[in-house]
Amino acid sequence: MLRIFIVAAACMLSLTSVAQNSIIGFKAANIESQNKLEDAFDAQLSSKNLDEWMQLLSDRPHYVGTEYGRQNAEWMIEQFTSWGFDAKIETYHVLFPYPKIRLLELTKPTSYKAKLSAIPIAEDKYTQQKDELLPSYNAFSKDGDVEAELVFVNYGIPADYEELEKLGIDVKGKIVIAKYAGSWRGIKPKLAAEKGAIGCIIYSDPEDDGYYRGDTYPEGAFKNETGVQRGSVMDMPLYPGDVLTPGYAATKDAKRLDRKDAPTITKIPVLPISYQDALPLLKALGGPVVPDSWKGALPITYHVGPGPAMVHLKLEFDWELKPIYNVIAKMKGDVFPDQWVMRGNHHDAWVHGANDPISGLVALLEEARAIGELVKAGYKPKRTLVYCAWDAEEPGLIGSTEWVEDHKDELQKKVVAYVNSDSNGRGFLFAGGSHTLQAMFSEIADDVVDPQTGVSVKKRRSAFDLLNGGDGNFRLGALGSGSDYSPFIQHAGIASLNLGYFAENAGGEYHTIYDTYTHYKQFKDPDFEYGIALAKTAGRIVLRLANSDVLPFEFQQWNQTVSGYMSELIKLTDGMRAAVEKHNTLVEKNVFELATDPKKNLAKPGKKELIPYLDFTSLQNEMVALNKVITDFSAKDFSNLDQAKSNKLNEKLLITEQALINEAGLPRRPWYKHQLYAPGFYTGYGVKTLPGVREAIEQENWEEAADQIKILTNTLRGFKNHIEEMLSIVE
Amino acid sequence: MLRIFIVAAACMLSLTSVAQNSIIGFKAANIESQNKLEDAFDAQLSSKNLDEWMQLLSDRPHYVGTEYGRQNAEWMIEQFTSWGFDAKIETYHVLFPYPKIRLLELTKPTSYKAKLSAIPIAEDKYTQQKDELLPSYNAFSKDGDVEAELVFVNYGIPADYEELEKLGIDVKGKIVIAKYAGSWRGIKPKLAAEKGAIGCIIYSDPEDDGYYRGDTYPEGAFKNETGVQRGSVMDMPLYPGDVLTPGYAATKDAKRLDRKDAPTITKIPVLPISYQDALPLLKALGGPVVPDSWKGALPITYHVGPGPAMVHLKLEFDWELKPIYNVIAKMKGDVFPDQWVMRGNHHDAWVHGANDPISGLVALLEEARAIGELVKAGYKPKRTLVYCAWDAEEPGLIGSTEWVEDHKDELQKKVVAYVNSDSNGRGFLFAGGSHTLQAMFSEIADDVVDPQTGVSVKKRRSAFDLLNGGDGNFRLGALGSGSDYSPFIQHAGIASLNLGYFAENAGGEYHTIYDTYTHYKQFKDPDFEYGIALAKTAGRIVLRLANSDVLPFEFQQWNQTVSGYMSELIKLTDGMRAAVEKHNTLVEKNVFELATDPKKNLAKPGKKELIPYLDFTSLQNEMVALNKVITDFSAKDFSNLDQAKSNKLNEKLLITEQALINEAGLPRRPWYKHQLYAPGFYTGYGVKTLPGVREAIEQENWEEAADQIKILTNTLRGFKNHIEEMLSIVE
Repeated sequence: MLRIFIVAAACMLSLTSVAQNSIIGFKAANIESQNKLEDAFDAQLSSKNLDEWMQLLSDRPHYVGTEYGRQNAEWMIEQFTSWGFDAKIETYHVLFPYPKIRLLELTKPTSYKAKLSAIPIAEDKYTQQKDELLPSYNAFSKDGDVEAELVFVNYGIPADYEELEKLGIDVKGKIVIAKYAGSWRGIKPKLAAEKGAIGCIIYSDPEDDGYYRGDTYPEGAFKNETGVQRGSVMDMPLYPGDVLTPGYAATKDAKRLDRKDAPTITKIPVLPISYQDALPLLKALGGPVVPDSWKGALPITYHVGPGPAMVHLKLEFDWELKPIYNVIAKMKGDVFPDQWVMRGNHHDAWVHGANDPISGLVALLEEARAIGELVKAGYKPKRTLVYCAWDAEEPGLIGSTEWVEDHKDELQKKVVAYVNSDSNGRGFLFAGGSHTLQAMFSEIADDVVDPQTGVSVKKRRSAFDLLNGGDGNFRLGALGSGSDYSPFIQHAGIASLNLGYFAENAGGEYHTIYDTYTHYKQFKDPDFEYGIALAKTAGRIVLRLANSDVLPFEFQQWNQTVSGYMSELIKLTDGMRAAVEKHNTLVEKNVFELATDPKKNLAKPGKKELIPYLDFTSLQNEMVALNKVITDFSAKDFSNLDQAKSNKLNEKLLITEQALINEAGLPRRPWYKHQLYAPGFYTGYGVKTLPGVREAIEQENWEEAADQIKILTNTLRGFKNHIEEMLSIVE
Repeated sequence: MLRIFIVAAACMLSLTSVAQNSIIGFKAANIESQNKLEDAFDAQLSSKNLDEWMQLLSDRPHYVGTEYGRQNAEWMIEQFTSWGFDAKIETYHVLFPYPKIRLLELTKPTSYKAKLSAIPIAEDKYTQQKDELLPSYNAFSKDGDVEAELVFVNYGIPADYEELEKLGIDVKGKIVIAKYAGSWRGIKPKLAAEKGAIGCIIYSDPEDDGYYRGDTYPEGAFKNETGVQRGSVMDMPLYPGDVLTPGYAATKDAKRLDRKDAPTITKIPVLPISYQDALPLLKALGGPVVPDSWKGALPITYHVGPGPAMVHLKLEFDWELKPIYNVIAKMKGDVFPDQWVMRGNHHDAWVHGANDPISGLVALLEEARAIGELVKAGYKPKRTLVYCAWDAEEPGLIGSTEWVEDHKDELQKKVVAYVNSDSNGRGFLFAGGSHTLQAMFSEIADDVVDPQTGVSVKKRRSAFDLLNGGDGNFRLGALGSGSDYSPFIQHAGIASLNLGYFAENAGGEYHTIYDTYTHYKQFKDPDFEYGIALAKTAGRIVLRLANSDVLPFEFQQWNQTVSGYMSELIKLTDGMRAAVEKHNTLVEKNVFELATDPKKNLAKPGKKELIPYLDFTSLQNEMVALNKVITDFSAKDFSNLDQAKSNKLNEKLLITEQALINEAGLPRRPWYKHQLYAPGFYTGYGVKTLPGVREAIEQENWEEAADQIKILTNTLRGFKNHIEEMLSIVE
């Protein structure tokens, strides 16, 4: 069967990839062989493998600490080994709490006990595995037993608390109920606790994640009334990874924080619930009707409270250390064994995780198998390939973070780039990462053919952007957080990419018992065409990074992007200034009071502090100087570099990204060292570019903003110096 | 009691009105007496009267043809007479159908019989009047007995049918279900029939009109699940008024069209239902999920259909002529008895109509009573005042239309302006009308004090606008249709105004059994403060028009507004041209196909016809000439005009608006003669300014657009000539 498939795939070659006349980083003489290699790689890829492996890996729940998770890791070791990799499991011991008690009840004015359990689906055998299914909870909620009046806080993000203030409502001593979405979930209890709440409930409103979006499972892909999104609420914007070992590896004998001192465990108990369980709670709320933008799709008038709804929330967890199993598989480089091209995807799931993460993992495995076949047929990668399957991503990027912390010095010396994937499905190519890799990525997006339309995946994505208000030009997004690239780029300063296909695979299975093979085959990527597209895309990245003559880092697109971020900062302060001035004028004219229904008794807004002019000149001048150096460097022709020079240049190129980190890290979160990209302190996954300066501005901390402008200027100067050093090599 | 109230009101004078040093149209010598008159007028106004009269007039249902409606008319005659007016009832005989059979049932795939009835509310005695309550229906739906598959068409407006086309769905032979809102209701069956549907159901989605907006009655003001909006669906954009006597009065012996020939009766049967009755129908729909913007607030995934839901709709009406009773009350002018200042509000309601129309009517009555008192105390209006309470507004502006058609010649000679109100409640002043009256209206909005905040109603409205993105400058809106000003301005070319206070009185009672005194007192204007504000505002308009030395028509603000409309037309075509060009480029690049999920099988859009450049120069040049004449006229000082000249000028000013009508009327609807304002042919109530040209452009009928530019140019030339004639009087 396998042989027949390969022949069939080979026949389709002309339709599924495009050979190029130039490839960034490759000498003219080496382009043809690289093209052939990539064709041969494509010809190896079999969607049947993806299908079979997904069935196997997501057959039973395999969250952190499960026997099935361990078996999956061992099975992968077998596979990698059989494909010619040097594979081993690296184990850490990390705090990962299972729930022991989960109780939520409405005690006044009526009573209701939350079911906290999703219904099994007759057509989906995986949902019927009963006790094996991990109950729904938010990992790293603290234990707690609280009873208080309920307040609805919309998404529970900073803007929502501003609205509450207008309404004259505070959450001190209350339990808040927040909708999922609008921010990373961990922000909700963090902010609620900062505002004085004593408990936090998070639910999926059907508007964001239920019948409002489309038919619900099993009729459609979306969340039925009983589905609950699990997920970690550790304070990841502070640091990800094991909560007890910040910044160092959670080895068996590592010194650990006392749990009570672990700063990333929540300050208040948190529980996620279904919209079925949320309905009676929300229905029982009184107080003002919510602002229009807060309204969801439940068949009620949404009220803010507080009360008369009173809820009782009791949570207890086991708080035990669990072993985690990272799979690390190396294929040694023939010419530069100490230059590593890394590729990773996590293997742990909240339940079965057919989509998250197995859909990405099976593509990664198929890439590795195909490369193994190429190697068996004689191909020798110049650089070492390192394929990884991380454990414990779900509770907080723990597997990858502990591993990066464990091997940081070596990685910073050796890793060319880290290429990440996670979930994947039908749709369009979305990618983010270091902008030094944008030029290379853009070429690859030209080469991979979209399985549904026959045009390049770049052209298809461009069409998507054009129809959604964009200019249709290909760009990498900036990386915030949310998957295993974070320790590589944010902490270690290793160039990283994250990619996947999405947008025609929407559903409500995320972190629920419905993320199963059955669901995936119906709604996500039934024929694994986009699994193959992912393998082709990520595989090309790996193969080009592995074989390039000069590492394909490019600085002009980087320069354009970062200059754009800089302009944004200036625009941001100008915009804030104009908004404050407008607000203050309206306050002076008494417009808020006059335009507001007096019966609503809203708080009358006061004048705001004026926004000062920040001195951006050092930064602007540094960018001008950097621009000059980049222009000079980009004008160089590397095609005739001798081997010694090209080796020296590559050694420098490999560590370029590290010039963008500052060892001291960002204010109040030293783990995050990258000066261009970080997850937002109050948004979570969402990226903040030039985060030191930007967040200081957003928080209106002008002293810190001025300091951070200096630090960023120094970082960019270091980056410029680094490019100048490379320039001196090639001159 | 009355006396005490008047004293109390007089003491509050300084807080409730502002005397001015100049009043447009008044000689300096006459300003003080006018200020005093208005103060005395204000002092007469008693909210207690409004309250008592609302209780009386809305005590029982008083729709067209009811005994209670006739009693109300007679009671008003008594009042007007007692206040010193010469009052009489003018009767017409018009077609107004009552429902005999109303049946709606889901026949497949499950069965459900629509209840078609709103629940009585224990706390609201008016809702318990059982058989007296007019059943919910759409007047001027034709009879019908149809069964077909159901299709959901969102609001059932042209843009929605474009979406359906993309989905490859047509409504031929189907029954459509449309949401209320998005257009005047009559557009929905009109368009559905044009598209080939055989029946039409209209329901109030809770997102627009139910629990999504706020708590439902009786807890809150909004529509509960059983409330149904009644309403006319006659093709009013063709002509309003009696369907059998287009353009002439429905007197007892008038020649009538055969009902089958009446063009404004719908072509298919139509029935309005509650969201409770809509839910099982919508739930039973299959087919694609609706576009995001179509989704409502029912707890379901909205589907388009067609089917499998099959519905059976059977409607039968009595189709009898009913007598209608217009109340016309005159107070003869002392100096210019043949110059009439008209003031009107309708008196018929769908059920009790406490808000619609009694809230506006009681303010009008109180104005008339107060003026009566002033007259008894010696005041003599220079011009004749005509106070009207129209019957049969609800079924299609029938009372006012028949009366205007009946007296058109006299009205065109005598009426200075018509001032309309309808519903009214807590909030902000909203007004529309002839822009020649904007300057006067603006002064009055400065003089009336907002009862809740103590600033002028203009300042409060300005605050509302500033907070909602406007520039805070006072402007009259343009009049489309929707109340009794329509025959005056659109058909007879009589300068008109329409005003009311709104926005803090939102609710779901409109045209339901819940529009009662009980509801009004809780949610609309509990103390009738805004009823008094309406009386003060409209009363001032009447008193200033009645007493002015030179009629207060002003042309510079008119000029600015109409020049703005002209610019909009050019922008409109430019915008359409750019949109078509962009669309065609995207089609060329195959963007629609590439960006669309192939599994959705959407129709691939083709290229569109290019938008030509229209020759607006004749219009532009005419506006330049007009601008010059207006500047000259506005520079004149009328303060020392002798009486003969001022009389001559007033005679001309009085008929100025008629220079803006074209006897031939608009294309395909000769009843609508005004060249600046008309209700949209496919929007209904919504105004289209410069409608001849604008609608030709919107329909991409370029030949007609060119013709209409010529006609509009001629109209504006006539208007210019008219001002030149006035200029020659004062030179």
